[in-house]
Amino acid sequence: MSMNGSTATLLISCPDQQGLVAKFANFIYDNGGNIIHADQHTDFEAGLFLTRIEWQLNGFKLSRDMMASSFASVAKPLQAVWEIHFSDTIPRLALFVTKQDHCLLDLLWRWQAKEIRADIPLIISNHEKLKAIAKQFDIDFYHFNLTKENKNRQEARQLELLREHRINLVILAKYMQILTPEFINHFPHIINIHHSFLPAFAGAKPYHRAHERGVKIIGATAHYVTADLDEGPIIEQDVVRVSHRDTIPDLIRKGKDLERVVLARAVRLHLQHRVLVYGNRTVVFA
Amino acid sequence: MSMNGSTATLLISCPDQQGLVAKFANFIYDNGGNIIHADQHTDFEAGLFLTRIEWQLNGFKLSRDMMASSFASVAKPLQAVWEIHFSDTIPRLALFVTKQDHCLLDLLWRWQAKEIRADIPLIISNHEKLKAIAKQFDIDFYHFNLTKENKNRQEARQLELLREHRINLVILAKYMQILTPEFINHFPHIINIHHSFLPAFAGAKPYHRAHERGVKIIGATAHYVTADLDEGPIIEQDVVRVSHRDTIPDLIRKGKDLERVVLARAVRLHLQHRVLVYGNRTVVFA
Amino acid sequence: MSMNGSTATLLISCPDQQGLVAKFANFIYDNGGNIIHADQHTDFEAGLFLTRIEWQLNGFKLSRDMMASSFASVAKPLQAVWEIHFSDTIPRLALFVTKQDHCLLDLLWRWQAKEIRADIPLIISNHEKLKAIAKQFDIDFYHFNLTKENKNRQEARQLELLREHRINLVILAKYMQILTPEFINHFPHIINIHHSFLPAFAGAKPYHRAHERGVKIIGATAHYVTADLDEGPIIEQDVVRVSHRDTIPDLIRKGKDLERVVLARAVRLHLQHRVLVYGNRTVVFA
Amino acid sequence: MSMNGSTATLLISCPDQQGLVAKFANFIYDNGGNIIHADQHTDFEAGLFLTRIEWQLNGFKLSRDMMASSFASVAKPLQAVWEIHFSDTIPRLALFVTKQDHCLLDLLWRWQAKEIRADIPLIISNHEKLKAIAKQFDIDFYHFNLTKENKNRQEARQLELLREHRINLVILAKYMQILTPEFINHFPHIINIHHSFLPAFAGAKPYHRAHERGVKIIGATAHYVTADLDEGPIIEQDVVRVSHRDTIPDLIRKGKDLERVVLARAVRLHLQHRVLVYGNRTVVFA
Repeated sequence: MSMNGSTATLLISCPDQQGLVAKFANFIYDNGGNIIHADQHTDFEAGLFLTRIEWQLNGFKLSRDMMASSFASVAKPLQAVWEIHFSDTIPRLALFVTKQDHCLLDLLWRWQAKEIRADIPLIISNHEKLKAIAKQFDIDFYHFNLTKENKNRQEARQLELLREHRINLVILAKYMQILTPEFINHFPHIINIHHSFLPAFAGAKPYHRAHERGVKIIGATAHYVTADLDEGPIIEQDVVRVSHRDTIPDLIRKGKDLERVVLARAVRLHLQHRVLVYGNRTVVFA
Repeated sequence: MSMNGSTATLLISCPDQQGLVAKFANFIYDNGGNIIHADQHTDFEAGLFLTRIEWQLNGFKLSRDMMASSFASVAKPLQAVWEIHFSDTIPRLALFVTKQDHCLLDLLWRWQAKEIRADIPLIISNHEKLKAIAKQFDIDFYHFNLTKENKNRQEARQLELLREHRINLVILAKYMQILTPEFINHFPHIINIHHSFLPAFAGAKPYHRAHERGVKIIGATAHYVTADLDEGPIIEQDVVRVSHRDTIPDLIRKGKDLERVVLARAVRLHLQHRVLVYGNRTVVFA
Repeated sequence: MSMNGSTATLLISCPDQQGLVAKFANFIYDNGGNIIHADQHTDFEAGLFLTRIEWQLNGFKLSRDMMASSFASVAKPLQAVWEIHFSDTIPRLALFVTKQDHCLLDLLWRWQAKEIRADIPLIISNHEKLKAIAKQFDIDFYHFNLTKENKNRQEARQLELLREHRINLVILAKYMQILTPEFINHFPHIINIHHSFLPAFAGAKPYHRAHERGVKIIGATAHYVTADLDEGPIIEQDVVRVSHRDTIPDLIRKGKDLERVVLARAVRLHLQHRVLVYGNRTVVFA
Repeated sequence: MSMNGSTATLLISCPDQQGLVAKFANFIYDNGGNIIHADQHTDFEAGLFLTRIEWQLNGFKLSRDMMASSFASVAKPLQAVWEIHFSDTIPRLALFVTKQDHCLLDLLWRWQAKEIRADIPLIISNHEKLKAIAKQFDIDFYHFNLTKENKNRQEARQLELLREHRINLVILAKYMQILTPEFINHFPHIINIHHSFLPAFAGAKPYHRAHERGVKIIGATAHYVTADLDEGPIIEQDVVRVSHRDTIPDLIRKGKDLERVVLARAVRLHLQHRVLVYGNRTVVFA
C-alpha cells in the first residue's frame, strides 16, 4: 500500500440506520478498492449519517463511468444523497475581487506553490485595480462596472463566463459586492471570506464596529454563500488577540493576516472534498 | 530597589496635552517615590490620555491621608479624573451564584491559593444548591427567593448586605438573574461572565445558538455590568475550537473551562487596578 | 437510533491491507450492532492501519463473553493487535500527588461534575499535605515517605495497593517523584502532566528555564509515562502567551491553568478509549 | 494633539533607581515635546530599568543634531545605554534567502502594502532560484555560490555590499546557511526565522523531528542572530495545532503560514523600535 496514485472520494448523507459503514465499505472492498481515509458523523438529533470515504483507484475493478451507476444501486434503498470525486480531476476556479489584494495574492501564491491544485482561468472584478496581478499570473481579467441598474445584466454575463470556462467554484476573495439571489441560485458553489468572527459583526465595517465595541479578540470567517448575507454555512474561522492599543488600521492589518489564512484553509478543505453541508451547518472531515 | 513592600497605584484619565507624563512622574519623584510600573494610552480620536502609575510607598514622604489632597492639586488644572489605591488594602468581594459551581469553585480555589488577594465575606444566591460550598469555605451564604413581585425588595436587601459587609466588588459567577438598573445604579462595581464570545450570542442559551449556527470556535467574555444586558465594557475574552463532533453538552463543558479562566483573569486584572473604563470600552494595563 | 445505552469500543492496530474497514464493519453489522463512531488512520510509512469503532450493544447478538473470542477469529489472520472496552465498565483511577493541589482539585471537581466517569478509590502521596482534600472527597489517602533507600520497597507496596484496588489508570497529578522502570513495567497505564511544551524544557524547573530563555509562549504536556523521563507518547498539549512582564511566579500561575486543562483533556480522551499508542506516538481519535 | 507628523523614539536601559521616569519625561517636556507612547519595564532581579519613549517632533525645541548630545548629559550620570530613532528615517533592509519563497514574498507584499516602511535595495542568496522575484519587485539580486572553502571570502563580499548599500537590518528569510561568528560580529543586526517553537527542535529538520516526536502543536520563532545557533534573543513566537493526520509535508505547509506571520511581526516590531535586548532576552514594548 502506498499513498500514490489517483483516488476516488464519496461524500454521502443519508438517514441513520444499521449497517451503513459496512455497506459502503463493502462496495469499495468488493470492487477491489483500498480505503485510505474514512470518516463519519452521526447527528442523532437529525437522525442523519454523514460520511467521507476515499480509496485508491489503482486496482479498482469498476471504470469511472460504471462507478456512479453501480453505487447508485447501493445508495438508492438507503435514500442516500451523494457525490463522487476523482483526485485527478483538476477543479476550475474563478476569483472575484474588488480592490484589496491580500487574499488574491495569497491564493495565487498557494496555487503557484501547488498548495492549491486547480486551474484558475479567470479573475472577475468590479474595479480595474488588480488587473496587473492577473496579468502577472497570466490569468484572464474581466472588469465589470456595476451599478444598481446594470447589476442583473452584468451578473448574467458573469454567469455566462463561469459556464464558458466550466468553473466549479467561485471564491469571493474580498469581493465588496452582494451577489443577487438569482446569481447564487444559478451558481451555488461560492466561498466567501468575511472579516469578522461571525455571527458577531455581520454586515458592513466589522473592524470599525469591533473597535467601537472594545472586543479583545477579532476573527475571520470563511463560509458558503447563500441568499442570506453572512448567514451561510461556516467552513472555517480563526481569531487573533487585540488590545486597546490597536487602532482601526491595526485591526484591519491583523485581520488581513487572518482572512488570508482562513480563506485558504476553507478553499483547500473544499477542494479536497472534506466539507459536507447539511442544514445551515458543515461537517468538516479534516 | 526590590519588589517588596506596599505600593500605591494611580489610575488617571484626562484630556490629552503636553507634559502629562512628566507632571505625574514628578509628583511621585518629588515626594520620594519609586515608580515600579507606569503604562499609558492615548486615544487620539477622543483626545484622551489614560495612565496607570504604581510606586513603592516605602520612603514616600506623603502620608496616605495627604496623598489625595496633594495629588488633587496636580489633577485639577488638568481636568483629570482619578483614583488612588493601596496594595495593602484588602478588597472585599461578594459572589453571586445560582446553581452552577464551576466559576464559584474556581474563584474560591484561587482565593485559597492566594492568586486572588481579597476578603470574601458572603455568597448570595437565588438557589440553595451551592450552600454547602459556602460552608466548606466558611463563608456566609444568603439565599434570596426571587419572584417578579419581590425582586425590587429582595435587591434592596442585597444592597443592604453589600453595604453592611463593606463590599467593593460584586462578581456574578454564573448568576442567572438580570439585575435591575436600580441595583446597578446603587452598586456599579460588578463583573459578569457571559458564556459567549460577545457580541456574538448575547442573551440566553448562547451554546445552543452557537451549535445551531455551526460556528467553529466558541468563547467567553468577562465584562462590567451596565444597564444594557451583555453590553457593558469588555475586560477579557478567550476562545476554544469546536467541531461538528461537539454536541451541545460538549460546548457547555468546553465553555465552562473558558468561563473559569476568563472570569478569573478579569477579576485579577480589576483587583490589581489594571482596568480603566472609558466610554463603553476598557484599557487593560496588563 | 438514539445515543442512549451502553456501547462497545474496539481499538485495533494491524498491518495495512485491503478490506480492513469492510471486515471490521461487517463483524459489527453481521452481529446486529449499530456503529455510532468509526475513525481510522493509515500510517503509510509504517504500513500500519489503526482504527477505533464504537457501536451500541442494544440488540447486539453476541454476549460480552463471546465478543472477544468471536472477534479474535477476525483479528488473527490480519495480525491485528486489539482491545475491547464497554462504556458501562467504570474505570478505577489512582491519583498520585505531592504538594500542589491544582491538578488534584481540578480532577476531583470534574469527577464530581461527572465530566470524568470513574471510581477513584485512592490517592497516593509522598507528602501529607493534601490529605485533607482526600478526606473531603471521601477518598483513601496513603502517605509514602520516600528515600533513596526505601524507594523500591515503597513502590512495591504502592503496586500492591493498585492491585488490591483493581486500578486501571494511574494519574500523576503533579507527583514530583520519578517512578522506577520496574514500577512502570509492572503498571504501564500511567498519565503524567509535564509543566512545559515538550520537548522544550524536559526535566526539572521548566518555568525557570523558560523565563531564562525568554520564550514568548509557554505550554504544558500530558503524556503516557515510559522509562525515559518526559519522553513518553504525547496525548495532549496546549500553550499560553507570556511576555517580559511575566515573572517566574507569573509563569507558574499561568502554567497551572494550562496543566489543569491539558491533564483533564488527556484523562478524558484516555477514558473514552480515544487514544492509540504506536511507536512513541499517539493517534487521538477525538 | 494629533497622531500625525514625525516622532523620535528613545530606547533606554539603565540601573534601576528613583526618579528615572520623571527625569526622562522632563527631558521631553522641558524641550516642548509631546509624548505619545511611553512604556517601561523593571527587571528587579537584574536591577535594570528599560524604557521606550516616543514623542512628536513637531514643536520640539532641540534640533536632531542637538538631541543626542543633550540627552547624553541626562543619560551619563544614570549610566544609561540608549539609542534614538526618528520615524521619518527610512530603514534599509537586505533580505537573505535560499530557495523557499514564502517568507520573501510575504515580506515584499507587506512592503508594497506599506505595512513595512523600509527601503529594500538588495536580496542576497546562495541560489539562483528566487532571482525572478527580485526582478519583479525591481530589487538587486546577488547570488553567492558558497562552499566550505570560499565562505569567509564570500561573506566578506556580502559585508561589503551591506556597507555600500548602508543596510540597517539583515533579515534571514529562510536562508539555509549558518553565518560565521565573524559575519555576525561585523553586522550584528540580523533577524532570523526558525521553523520550530524554540528551544524545541533547534537545529536542522525541525518538522521531521516534531513528526517523529508526535507533538500536538508546532511553532515558529523569530529571533536575533547570535554566534550560538538558534540561541539568540527571541522576538516573537506562534504556534498551530497538528494531529496524527498531519504528514511531514502537512507540518511544513502549516509551518510556512506560521513562519510568514511570525517573521513579519518581528520585523515590524524591530522597525518600530519596540524591541530592547538585554542579556539573551528581549523586552517587546508592543
